[in-house]
Amino acid sequence: MEQPASATSDERVFTACVIVIGNEILSGRTQDSNIAFLAGALNEAGVRLREARVIPDITATIIANVNDARAQFDYVFTTGGIGPTHDDITAASVAEAFGVKLLLNEEARALLQARYGDTPLNEARLRMAHIPDGATLIDNPISAAPGFKMENVFVLAGVPAIARAMFRSLRQHLIGGSSVLTRTVNCRLPEGTIAADLEAIQNRWPDIEIGSYPMWTNDGPATSLVLRGTDATRLDAAEADVTAMIVALGGEPMQLTPANPSVV
Amino acid sequence: MEQPASATSDERVFTACVIVIGNEILSGRTQDSNIAFLAGALNEAGVRLREARVIPDITATIIANVNDARAQFDYVFTTGGIGPTHDDITAASVAEAFGVKLLLNEEARALLQARYGDTPLNEARLRMAHIPDGATLIDNPISAAPGFKMENVFVLAGVPAIARAMFRSLRQHLIGGSSVLTRTVNCRLPEGTIAADLEAIQNRWPDIEIGSYPMWTNDGPATSLVLRGTDATRLDAAEADVTAMIVALGGEPMQLTPANPSVV
Repeated sequence: MEQPASATSDERVFTACVIVIGNEILSGRTQDSNIAFLAGALNEAGVRLREARVIPDITATIIANVNDARAQFDYVFTTGGIGPTHDDITAASVAEAFGVKLLLNEEARALLQARYGDTPLNEARLRMAHIPDGATLIDNPISAAPGFKMENVFVLAGVPAIARAMFRSLRQHLIGGSSVLTRTVNCRLPEGTIAADLEAIQNRWPDIEIGSYPMWTNDGPATSLVLRGTDATRLDAAEADVTAMIVALGGEPMQLTPANPSVV
Repeated sequence: MEQPASATSDERVFTACVIVIGNEILSGRTQDSNIAFLAGALNEAGVRLREARVIPDITATIIANVNDARAQFDYVFTTGGIGPTHDDITAASVAEAFGVKLLLNEEARALLQARYGDTPLNEARLRMAHIPDGATLIDNPISAAPGFKMENVFVLAGVPAIARAMFRSLRQHLIGGSSVLTRTVNCRLPEGTIAADLEAIQNRWPDIEIGSYPMWTNDGPATSLVLRGTDATRLDAAEADVTAMIVALGGEPMQLTPANPSVV
């Protein structure tokens, strides 16, 4: 095999952290789906999700996590806790994290008033119009109550459909780098058989992240090998190495259902 | 309404943190289900999941998170990264976090050898028998390669079926307190209508955590109210308050599909 060209990428990498604020996730009541959605959507925007945290509806915990994450990552996305009830404490907590006041935002009030028509907004609904001083609103085309952006922190709803709609509203304002591209090769060889040769391939392609995921199918053990990187040419070449390795070990490179073909 | 008796619970509360180690979750390739499973299973064991983190396969990140979490919480559960390939770095990272050596464990080697029969274990499979010095093994009835417990840190596989089997293996060794009990009341009133009265009920029952979750159904907006606490009698009384509030506001307490009846 020829020596691969050295990695080209000293490109700026943009990173993100997702903070899921929700007792309902930590109690097991609700299966989170916002992390997986944001992971994929951020990657398409050229931003790498580096960490996700699920934390409870506790003001001090929200403040500590928001402040820690906004210093560490280019972008922070929170989900949850921006509704009208007593357990919706995200906006107040983010204001406190930034040391600014939580103010009635006239633009947000108008958006909510438009939704509720002639009915005056009660105190609970006005709560959803209170936004940290200096924040800009994120449009919510589903239920009107807006999210907001405060510096590099984006505050989204917890309801998945609304979180997704808000992400679409803010997407154009994100500055990212290259998207990470993926190649997947599956085979019916167990991980333990391919591990040594796979490690040699990983060492040969240090800028490509190679993940190995075991599966147990009705036809026996199998392995899914996932290659991730930003350079399509190098990714293709590394994939060819993986494919050749599988053949050399007596296996057959194959496609399985991408999601999760495991029957365990 | 009569004044409720004051909360009785100065009982010891046992806490946990889950650390999901996996680039495949952060890339959006795989939807995590271990957090939701462990949340529910821990609660049944009388342990409260207080935080969950999804972190990448990076040694320094794993070490920092394990050391931070084991100091903060009664129990730490990691999932992922204990297979035979180059990206399986959890055992070595946990050993480093505890400042102990990663050693070939004879018990683990025997378990793996029993699975692979007369075939000698290659270097990759022997990797799965390397366990931090001083750890005790956690049985893996599915694919033999064991998890392990190091002080208050439980290291489980990432494959959900194996993580669950390992949890069943270790469950009897967990010391917990009271399980958290749940009551759910739904209604077709929007959150903004019930927020003020609900907050008054929350203030009346400080030891009961009341969560409010909006839903958008084919028949319009609805709200799911979830009460959580350890005292069944107080929980029943608080639920009666919530039910009475819904009726007083012109709504009807009802059951919807518990999981997620939202059509948004």
